Amino acid sequence: MSNERFTDNVVWHPSSVTRADRERLLKQRGTIVWMTGISGAGKSTIATLVEQRLIEAGKLAYPLDGDNLRHGLNAGLGFSASDRSENVRRAGEVARLFADAGVIVIVSLISPYRKDRDAIRASVSPGDFVEAYIKCSLATAEQRDPKGLYKKARAGQLSGFTGVDDPYEAPVKPELEIDTDRMTADVAAETIIKFLNDRGTHGFGFHHHT
Amino acid sequence: MSNERFTDNVVWHPSSVTRADRERLLKQRGTIVWMTGISGAGKSTIATLVEQRLIEAGKLAYPLDGDNLRHGLNAGLGFSASDRSENVRRAGEVARLFADAGVIVIVSLISPYRKDRDAIRASVSPGDFVEAYIKCSLATAEQRDPKGLYKKARAGQLSGFTGVDDPYEAPVKPELEIDTDRMTADVAAETIIKFLNDRGTHGFGFHHHT
Repeated sequence: MSNERFTDNVVWHPSSVTRADRERLLKQRGTIVWMTGISGAGKSTIATLVEQRLIEAGKLAYPLDGDNLRHGLNAGLGFSASDRSENVRRAGEVARLFADAGVIVIVSLISPYRKDRDAIRASVSPGDFVEAYIKCSLATAEQRDPKGLYKKARAGQLSGFTGVDDPYEAPVKPELEIDTDRMTADVAAETIIKFLNDRGTHGFGFHHHT
Repeated sequence: MSNERFTDNVVWHPSSVTRADRERLLKQRGTIVWMTGISGAGKSTIATLVEQRLIEAGKLAYPLDGDNLRHGLNAGLGFSASDRSENVRRAGEVARLFADAGVIVIVSLISPYRKDRDAIRASVSPGDFVEAYIKCSLATAEQRDPKGLYKKARAGQLSGFTGVDDPYEAPVKPELEIDTDRMTADVAAETIIKFLNDRGTHGFGFHHHT
């Protein structure tokens, strides 16, 4: 009976592919590089450079950008505290899937609340979550104002804007703290690449899971 | 001034990595293989086999399973018509990100409503979405009942169960129709692999974007 044949087949098919199999294929370790910081701190710029250097080195990197996610997966979410949390939670879940796929996923997301970031860290294996605090004074960020958002927030056209009338909770013990008041984006990107490269014995922290 | 240095840097950093760069690195084409069908049709079993064969062939494949997503990204969603649609929408958005990353993502999701599946197809480039209808008679699925869900639905312990008291809308023109009443999971997996392999001139449909 065809049904039995199918079921038989289920029984003797070999075991599933694991994360370790994918990492072996890619010769890298799946990792979440989580860049947090206020608007204008330089997250997206640095992410682009990190991504470029990884790809040039033959590593599969992929960017998850907060703004882009809001056009797709997170469309419909606003900027209330609960919507911000849900926005970060979903980004974290997607990042987790990418790391599980073996990809080095580079997240650029203000992610202002500490508990939301810590929840993601707690949901993955130690070492999978590399928190990179992209630090910048409010004065500098406001001067850069790449999207004109600080201007709008100061004019009262935007409410609940992080750093203006909504809190930014800086990481307490991030893996990396990158001060873009004092560091170029190039140096910032190098710092992150070096961290990824140094943490394992095989380039880019590739290790064999057992 | 450090701020100016940083901004200068933004200006002359080279252009972003593209999907084509990632596909070149992986030597494959990012693709969504979307398996739709009623519970017990064999989606997850076939997905596992397809994934294994792709990984053995050196291709980066990743499974997105409806049940697993409900424990993470889609936690909190139920089985009402609108929650089902949102469940499928989010899975589609994640699949889209994976395809953009260059990955062959294998989705196993009942995804009962045609309009939800068609919305995902419409959101990606032609050829990115390979709809594989995993077809199976209700009688066979109910006899297999791998999770004991049909039994519960018939006993009235589950409501809104696809095929019992919620509709399944079969694809009209899927890329692949796989009848697991008549085909083993092995043959089903081979059929999908062959489709992926045949559609391009470079193995697994790898092509150069221009």
